[in-house]
Amino acid sequence: MEVSAKLARFIVETGFDEIPPDAIAAAKRAILDTLGVALSGTREQSAKIVAKVVANLGGQPSASLFGAPLRTSPSNAALANGVMAHALDYDDDIGVGYGHPSAVIVPTVLALGEALGRSGREVIEAYVLGVEVWLKIARAMPRLHTLGWHPTGIFGALGAAVAASKLMRLDVDQTTMVLGLGGSHAAGLIQNLGTMAKPFHAGNAARGGIIAAMLVSEGLTATREVLEGNFGLPAALCGTGATDPASMVEDLGAPFAVVRPGINVKRYPCYYSAHKCIDAVLHLIDEFDFEPDDVISVHCLVPDRVTKILFHTSPQTGLEAKFSMQFFMAAAIIDRGLRLAQFTDAKVNDARIRGLMKRVTMSEHRIMEGSDIPLDHPDAVTVTLKGGKQISHAVAIAKGHADNPLTKAELLGKYGECAGLVMHEEDVARLGDILAGLDKLADVKELTRLLRTRPSC
Amino acid sequence: MEVSAKLARFIVETGFDEIPPDAIAAAKRAILDTLGVALSGTREQSAKIVAKVVANLGGQPSASLFGAPLRTSPSNAALANGVMAHALDYDDDIGVGYGHPSAVIVPTVLALGEALGRSGREVIEAYVLGVEVWLKIARAMPRLHTLGWHPTGIFGALGAAVAASKLMRLDVDQTTMVLGLGGSHAAGLIQNLGTMAKPFHAGNAARGGIIAAMLVSEGLTATREVLEGNFGLPAALCGTGATDPASMVEDLGAPFAVVRPGINVKRYPCYYSAHKCIDAVLHLIDEFDFEPDDVISVHCLVPDRVTKILFHTSPQTGLEAKFSMQFFMAAAIIDRGLRLAQFTDAKVNDARIRGLMKRVTMSEHRIMEGSDIPLDHPDAVTVTLKGGKQISHAVAIAKGHADNPLTKAELLGKYGECAGLVMHEEDVARLGDILAGLDKLADVKELTRLLRTRPSC
Repeated sequence: MEVSAKLARFIVETGFDEIPPDAIAAAKRAILDTLGVALSGTREQSAKIVAKVVANLGGQPSASLFGAPLRTSPSNAALANGVMAHALDYDDDIGVGYGHPSAVIVPTVLALGEALGRSGREVIEAYVLGVEVWLKIARAMPRLHTLGWHPTGIFGALGAAVAASKLMRLDVDQTTMVLGLGGSHAAGLIQNLGTMAKPFHAGNAARGGIIAAMLVSEGLTATREVLEGNFGLPAALCGTGATDPASMVEDLGAPFAVVRPGINVKRYPCYYSAHKCIDAVLHLIDEFDFEPDDVISVHCLVPDRVTKILFHTSPQTGLEAKFSMQFFMAAAIIDRGLRLAQFTDAKVNDARIRGLMKRVTMSEHRIMEGSDIPLDHPDAVTVTLKGGKQISHAVAIAKGHADNPLTKAELLGKYGECAGLVMHEEDVARLGDILAGLDKLADVKELTRLLRTRPSC
Repeated sequence: MEVSAKLARFIVETGFDEIPPDAIAAAKRAILDTLGVALSGTREQSAKIVAKVVANLGGQPSASLFGAPLRTSPSNAALANGVMAHALDYDDDIGVGYGHPSAVIVPTVLALGEALGRSGREVIEAYVLGVEVWLKIARAMPRLHTLGWHPTGIFGALGAAVAASKLMRLDVDQTTMVLGLGGSHAAGLIQNLGTMAKPFHAGNAARGGIIAAMLVSEGLTATREVLEGNFGLPAALCGTGATDPASMVEDLGAPFAVVRPGINVKRYPCYYSAHKCIDAVLHLIDEFDFEPDDVISVHCLVPDRVTKILFHTSPQTGLEAKFSMQFFMAAAIIDRGLRLAQFTDAKVNDARIRGLMKRVTMSEHRIMEGSDIPLDHPDAVTVTLKGGKQISHAVAIAKGHADNPLTKAELLGKYGECAGLVMHEEDVARLGDILAGLDKLADVKELTRLLRTRPSC
């Protein structure tokens, strides 16, 4: 069973012309959203710290940092930019529990694409294939996050390795070994959710993929059986025989993962699997127009993985608040929305927020023994108001999900709002134009030059 | 249960004066052996490739590569030097299945020690504490390698994080978080044994530890519960509740791990748990003076973990041969010894070797249900000679093991042989003198300068 080699062959043999227009369009939407989010992420403490350390480490100036006038090695740039892209937890998501592909793959393909002088088509191609491998491998290892592994760090190492291999134009055997070396970069703990180490996982995966491809291109060898071997990554993570590696190559590109399950764009800068409840509570506020003081209690009905991962029930920092259902509900009700500006340490420690947080509870869907919650099972929020009135709303598919996507205007609105936090209006527009025509861009340097420039906002 | 914080407190509060003389002496022996092995490792393909990629990446020139006239960032230097130290699988080992501490920690402390201008005493202190944390954490997760995780990559990330924290003089809270970020660097697959990715694990762990310490020193946050948390590293690796994190802090420094279990120095450049069998077969050759053509079969009686890990039963390369009992026995019998020069692709494919390899078998000790093989249980080799005569020898503790150590002359002999492969005789002696007085060295740059110089052998 040559799973890794089959995957590598698909990567090597699939060019831009084999990728259908809907996948290209999905990639372009995702790259636009990711860059907006990454630019707003440059203002975060985690992003500033990594940028400073990367600047101190130095490196041949061949790839640009986002939002800073610095060029460094592609691996260091990908590390820093990956942190920026994931710093706000506002970047996209795929499937359920499979992690945040674009925060890893976009920094990988831009850093390496710039250093190698690749075209927009090649960048899109590498992005689509990186996400493809990520999802097809992840799908065979569901609920990895509930075991303690951060999917973005684990699958990211493999997805970035593939994207980097493609941009470096490696052959099938080399690409197989880059997957092998990528598997030895797979790392990242769920315990780090709510700290700055979480966005670090995205940058570290991007960096690892680039380093793996560079080393193999110079002759470093690695296992050719990272997926199917008795001591390969799925065996180490889930136990020998617990996963079916053959399923990873069953439907490569048919359809591409960027199309189905598709990329979920976040409307709120926090843990994605809570978005159904956030949509629900905002719907209730809109419909019933109640005030925070009217609220006796808020109850969320969610799958068990959500109660497990949202372990910050009494968050102390803005970062912890990104993994706290208590905060999501309290902040949404008090501020009538859930936006970037709310995720601050001050807000988390605001007496009104803390008071309301105490009245938020969660419970798990009751499910049949041995079954699992279907992905589109509705999550529900019930608000009990003074006087005993209960209002309730359930949401099956969050707005922004691939099956309930943002309109073009909504997507551009989010991009403009995010990028506009750090960039002049005309540059926001120029960057948007370049991204709209990314498949026609001759050299990705034209894009990264614009991303690098320190904006004066 | 504040395990991580307790560990951090011990690291911060333990200075050179709290480390007893036998631990200092053990550290000095290990550093000498590691540098000899690393210098000979610079000739390996894996080491050359990583050095080339690191040179291309560039970096602020503050730390030296071994055996090359190059200085780069501490993280890049540690990456390359870690690969050099582990490239030959001739570097030391600790416990059973707990990995190769010095190949990770020595490059970490020298790269960062040089960049920070630290003394020999501080380097020894950081080394001893790095190994200490490595072993005490590893001990709570036995047989991790049989699950598919390479202990050197996993525990190495934590050991290097601790050593780097100590050299950077971080405080208790920072050190706790460096452990947290180190846990998100823990990576490396057993499937990569027998490829150049295996030594990469050592370098990558060293690099990760340094990056973790640098990032936390600038303010990056990470979990303070990487060991005890429900989604911490032991939970992710072994399942929640399967390990006892409290045991990790039970006997810190009492005694230090470098003293007990102590550092096992390798006499043969290959998988350490086979050394008992190699000692046994060499003893038989010595005692009975038989010829390869006399051998009908060779049988090795070993613990089950050895049969699991030595999956290269028909190796095709010198690297795969380092994990092949078939090769160890055949090469030892044909060449009457097992030395560096034998682990080549040509030797592996030599017709005589391949012929004899086919006659080598392994079986597992029969053990009681639920028990485990005691560490000093003898492994046995039985050779059946033409005419049906069977000769057998069992070895409980391999020569070079901490409980059966090399004499000073033997240790210096190995060091001199290894370093002499790439260094002038007078430099070998000078380096040996510096290492003998390492605790008196004012600035470790004096040592790394000598290691950097490209020898003209």
